[in-house]
Amino acid sequence: MLESAARVAILIEDLFEDVEVASPRGALAAAGARVTLVGPMAGKAYTGNHGGMFTADLAAAAARADDFDAVVIPGGFAPDKMRLRHAMIDLVRECMSAGKPVAAICRGPSVLINANVLKGRTLTCWPSIAVDVKNAGGRYVDRPVVEDGNLITSRKPDDLPAFNDALLRQLAARAAR
Amino acid sequence: MLESAARVAILIEDLFEDVEVASPRGALAAAGARVTLVGPMAGKAYTGNHGGMFTADLAAAAARADDFDAVVIPGGFAPDKMRLRHAMIDLVRECMSAGKPVAAICRGPSVLINANVLKGRTLTCWPSIAVDVKNAGGRYVDRPVVEDGNLITSRKPDDLPAFNDALLRQLAARAAR
Repeated sequence: MLESAARVAILIEDLFEDVEVASPRGALAAAGARVTLVGPMAGKAYTGNHGGMFTADLAAAAARADDFDAVVIPGGFAPDKMRLRHAMIDLVRECMSAGKPVAAICRGPSVLINANVLKGRTLTCWPSIAVDVKNAGGRYVDRPVVEDGNLITSRKPDDLPAFNDALLRQLAARAAR
Repeated sequence: MLESAARVAILIEDLFEDVEVASPRGALAAAGARVTLVGPMAGKAYTGNHGGMFTADLAAAAARADDFDAVVIPGGFAPDKMRLRHAMIDLVRECMSAGKPVAAICRGPSVLINANVLKGRTLTCWPSIAVDVKNAGGRYVDRPVVEDGNLITSRKPDDLPAFNDALLRQLAARAAR
């Protein structure tokens, strides 16, 4: 269990990879974190690639980086939509600036490209966006999970246990300070 | 009508934007061009974002740039898959090197990023990949159709009439030489 209730934002948009929302959400809740699904509109349901649905708790435009200890960016094709949402990009950029854990999986790092926070950072992602990550100044590696300071990245659903573990470990380390 | 039968490859993969295959295919056929759908496997049917299906005529691994006068890259989410197909990337790169018309719409320019052919070129695309295009050295503009030499690009289905016209005009100009 985390010492105090960490507050974690999970970004949500249509076409998210279902398990990449459900699994971190479940792992975080089981560890005692308070999870907020942050989408374009509060109260609206978003549909995953495999038909799962989640309702956004909070609109991205109303989400303040100060109110969260970490942010999770799931994959699927949702990042293609998220990267056009300025409020989501701002939230991610501010969490990165503050050194808070930012955990992105699959195509989630596309959102980091739009936030312009990858220069000199080492990360992994789904291979289709590896060239984009490199062109954005990132150093791409092919590993189940990569931690470069506060930046946590994984490639695909198979990597979720390692991805969740890294996020929970960073949150516990921050809570212990 | 085109003077002689232009040979045009249209790339195909699952999750193509249906009308971005159907419309250029129909316009090309109506103008007398010979259209070949080039996919990962010959004889396999691929499914569009809206459920339409097209069967590949030719495997990308068997497609030679010499056998085509132009290549069309449709959008939807298919380009996310195409950019991982080395044979498709090679075909596009060789057509670009040969100065043949290469027409990409929506997220199709993602394939051009992997072919590493965008440095110094002016183009348009679906806005979600605009930053990727810029990071790859392209000059992004927001217009219905952009022609930079042999490179023809458009943003979305609404742009298809202008996109098809530009491609047919370039093919006619080449045939008249």
